[in-house]
Amino acid sequence: MRATLLIENIGELATPVGSSARAGARMRELRIVRDAAVAVDVETIAWAGPASELPRLDGPPPERVDARGGAVVPGFVDSHTHFVFGGYRDDEFFWRAEGLPYMEIHARGGGIANTVRDTRNASAEELEASAAARLERMLGLGVTTVEGKSGYGLDLETELRQLEVMRLLDARQPVDIVSTYMGPHSIPVEYKGNPSGYIDFAIREVLPRVKEGGLARFCDVFCERGVFELDDSRRFLEAARSMGFGVKLHADEIVRLGGAGLAAAVGAVSADHLLKASDDDLGAMAEAGVVATCLPLTAFSLREPYAPARAMVDRGLAVAVASDLNPGSCYSQSIPLAAALAVLYMGMTIEETLTALTLNAAAALGLAGDRGSIEAGKLADLLVLDAPSYRHLAYHVGMNLVGAVVKRGKIVGVRA
Amino acid sequence: MRATLLIENIGELATPVGSSARAGARMRELRIVRDAAVAVDVETIAWAGPASELPRLDGPPPERVDARGGAVVPGFVDSHTHFVFGGYRDDEFFWRAEGLPYMEIHARGGGIANTVRDTRNASAEELEASAAARLERMLGLGVTTVEGKSGYGLDLETELRQLEVMRLLDARQPVDIVSTYMGPHSIPVEYKGNPSGYIDFAIREVLPRVKEGGLARFCDVFCERGVFELDDSRRFLEAARSMGFGVKLHADEIVRLGGAGLAAAVGAVSADHLLKASDDDLGAMAEAGVVATCLPLTAFSLREPYAPARAMVDRGLAVAVASDLNPGSCYSQSIPLAAALAVLYMGMTIEETLTALTLNAAAALGLAGDRGSIEAGKLADLLVLDAPSYRHLAYHVGMNLVGAVVKRGKIVGVRA
Repeated sequence: MRATLLIENIGELATPVGSSARAGARMRELRIVRDAAVAVDVETIAWAGPASELPRLDGPPPERVDARGGAVVPGFVDSHTHFVFGGYRDDEFFWRAEGLPYMEIHARGGGIANTVRDTRNASAEELEASAAARLERMLGLGVTTVEGKSGYGLDLETELRQLEVMRLLDARQPVDIVSTYMGPHSIPVEYKGNPSGYIDFAIREVLPRVKEGGLARFCDVFCERGVFELDDSRRFLEAARSMGFGVKLHADEIVRLGGAGLAAAVGAVSADHLLKASDDDLGAMAEAGVVATCLPLTAFSLREPYAPARAMVDRGLAVAVASDLNPGSCYSQSIPLAAALAVLYMGMTIEETLTALTLNAAAALGLAGDRGSIEAGKLADLLVLDAPSYRHLAYHVGMNLVGAVVKRGKIVGVRA
Repeated sequence: MRATLLIENIGELATPVGSSARAGARMRELRIVRDAAVAVDVETIAWAGPASELPRLDGPPPERVDARGGAVVPGFVDSHTHFVFGGYRDDEFFWRAEGLPYMEIHARGGGIANTVRDTRNASAEELEASAAARLERMLGLGVTTVEGKSGYGLDLETELRQLEVMRLLDARQPVDIVSTYMGPHSIPVEYKGNPSGYIDFAIREVLPRVKEGGLARFCDVFCERGVFELDDSRRFLEAARSMGFGVKLHADEIVRLGGAGLAAAVGAVSADHLLKASDDDLGAMAEAGVVATCLPLTAFSLREPYAPARAMVDRGLAVAVASDLNPGSCYSQSIPLAAALAVLYMGMTIEETLTALTLNAAAALGLAGDRGSIEAGKLADLLVLDAPSYRHLAYHVGMNLVGAVVKRGKIVGVRA
C-alpha cells in the first residue's frame, strides 16, 4: 500500500459508515476503533483501522501526524450557510435580545433589506475578503466542506457576484465550497407584492446565467407564507431541476405551509428548518430520502423552539445539523455549540449528532459518496481532536476541540 | 512617556472604568474610544486613548501590535472555576442529557465522588498536565486571570496537592491564577452524615497548612441544604477570615437556604450561583458590596433556569459572569457562550456583560484595583479582537473572536 500521509497514535477513531445518509436508529451506529491509524494516499483515504493491522507501506515514507492519543473524526460538513454577505446587523440582534417585537424591529430599520443593500454595495473583493475570514474560522472549527447560498442580491448582478465570490474562494483556500443559487430568499423591493413576477425573473433571467457560468450546484427557496408560497416555490424548483440543478428548501420554519411535503414531491436533497413540518410531510420526506436539516444555532439565537430532531430520527428520517450562518437571525458558525444544542436541547445522542454533522450533512449536498466518513476511497477530510473521545464534542460544552485539520490529504490547520 | 509595547490601529477601545465593582446602571457605562492606541510600559498600561492624542514616546522604540481596525477590550477574568481535577464524567453528562433523574444517575455511579477518587489517584504531574491544557484553552479564549478551587480531594493531602499544582502553574504559564481552598465542596465518605466533623477537620487540620504554605487567597464553601448548612458554612468562613483569607460562597443554587445573606454577613467578596437567593438577601449583598457571580454555562449544561441577572443589576448589585468549569455539572470554559447566554438568556446588555466578565469578575477576586479595565496604571492584560466592535462578543454567537492576547505587557497568544 502507498501512503503520502500517516496519522498515528489515534486513541479513538470514530466515524459513521456508508455512502448515503444514515436514517433513524442507524444514525447512532458508528465504527469505533481504539488505537487506530489512518493512511492517506494523496487526496484520499487508503486505509483506516487498528494500528496493529496497518498494511506494510511501499514507496517513499509518508508524512506523519501524531494524534497523541486523541480522537479522530471526519471533517465536518456545514450544509446550510449564507456566508457571503456585506455589512452586519448587530443593532437588530440587540433589539431582539432586549425583547423588541418583530414589527418594531422592522420599523426601526432592521431586517434582511439591510444585508441586501450592503451586499449590493459591496465589491467582489470586499465580499471575498470578509467571506474568506469567515471560512478561516470555520476551517479552524473543523469544517472541511461548506455550502454557501446567494440570496442577498435579489438582482441578477449581485446574485452572480455572490456566486462568483464562492467560485473564487473555492479555488483559493482549502475548504470545499458547494454553491447554491437562492434568488428566492426574499422578495426584493423591485417586486414588492409580486413574488410570482420575481420567480419569473429568477427563472428567465438568472437561472440560465447561473447554469451557463457553472456557478451553482443547487437552488434553494424560502418557502413560507407571505414570501414564496407553495406554487411559486414548486415552479422555481421544477425549473431548476429541469436545468440540471439539485434542489433544497427552507421549509416550514415559521408556519406549517407544506414545504416539507413539497421537498419530498420534487425530490429535494434536503429540507431545512422544519420546526412546523407536519407529521405526514415528514413521513413523505423519509420515504423520498430527503435529508431533514436542523439548524439549532438559529433557534438558540432567536430564542425559538428547536426542531423536533429526536422525533425525526425516531420516525426514520436522516437528520443533518448545520449552522445557518448569516448576519441576521444567526450570526454563528459554531459547530461546537451546534453539537451541544443537538445533545442537550434536541434530544439527539452524540453518535447521531456526529453523523448529522458529517455523513448526513454530506448527503444533504449529494456528496455522501465521496466524503462524510473515514473510509478507504473517500476524500481524506478528517480532524484530530485534542480530546480522548468523540464524546467530548458534546461533553466539553461549546469548546473547539479541533487540534489538526486534514483536508484532501493535506494538513491545513494545526492549533498553535 | 516610555513604552515597551504600543497597540496601534485600534478601531474601537471598549472598557469599563474604575478600581472597584460596577453595580446597577453603571455596569453599562463603558469608555469607548474610536481610533485608539494603548501604550504599555513593561507590565502596566502607560496610556490609553485616541491615537491622535498619543503622547510622544521617549526611549527605545516599543514593540508594535497592529490591531488592524479591530476592537480592544480588557482580558477576561474567570472568577469561578474548578480547573484542577482528575478524570472525566462524560457518562454522567450523557445520562443527564438523556433525561435520567438525579437519583438514577447516582445509582449508576455518577457524581462528584468519581472526581474525588480520580483526583486522589492522580499525581501532581498528571494534575498539572491536564490543568495546563485547560489553561491554554482559556488563554486562547482571552482569559488572563483565572480563579481555581480545590475541593476534589476532601482530605489533607489531595487538597494541598491541588493547590500546589495551581501554585506551580501560576509560575509556569502566562495566566494569573488565584487559588481558593474549597475543602467544604462535598462531604467525603470519611465524614458521611457528619458535615460538622468535616468542617472541624478542615479548620483544624487543613486551613493552617494552606495558610502556612501561602497556597490560597480565598476559602469557599458549598452552602446548601444537606451539604453544608448555614451554621457550618459560617463557622468555616469565619475561621478562614480570622486567619486572613478572603471568603466566597456557593450560595442558594438548589434551595433558598440563605447563603446570599450569609455572604453579606461575613463580608464575602462574592456569592456565586444564586438561582434561589431571596430578594432580602440580594439586598443585603448589594449593601455589603458582595459581587453576585452568575454561572450561565452551568445552567445551560444542566438545562436549569438562569440566575436572575437582569433583576440583580436592576436592584443595584454588581454582577460578575464566570464559567464554573468543572468535570461534572459544567465542563466548559467557553467565555463566548457565557457572553451569548448573558445577553440572550439572562437579559443583560452587552455592556453589562463585558463589565461582568472583566472588572466585576476582577472585583469578585479582590483584584479590581490592578486589573479588569484598560486604564493607566493597571496591568496590561488586554485582547485584540478579530472583530470591529466589542458588541460582536455577543452578536457573533458562541464564536471566539480573540485575535491576540497581551498579558502583563507581553504578547502571549496570537491566532495563527
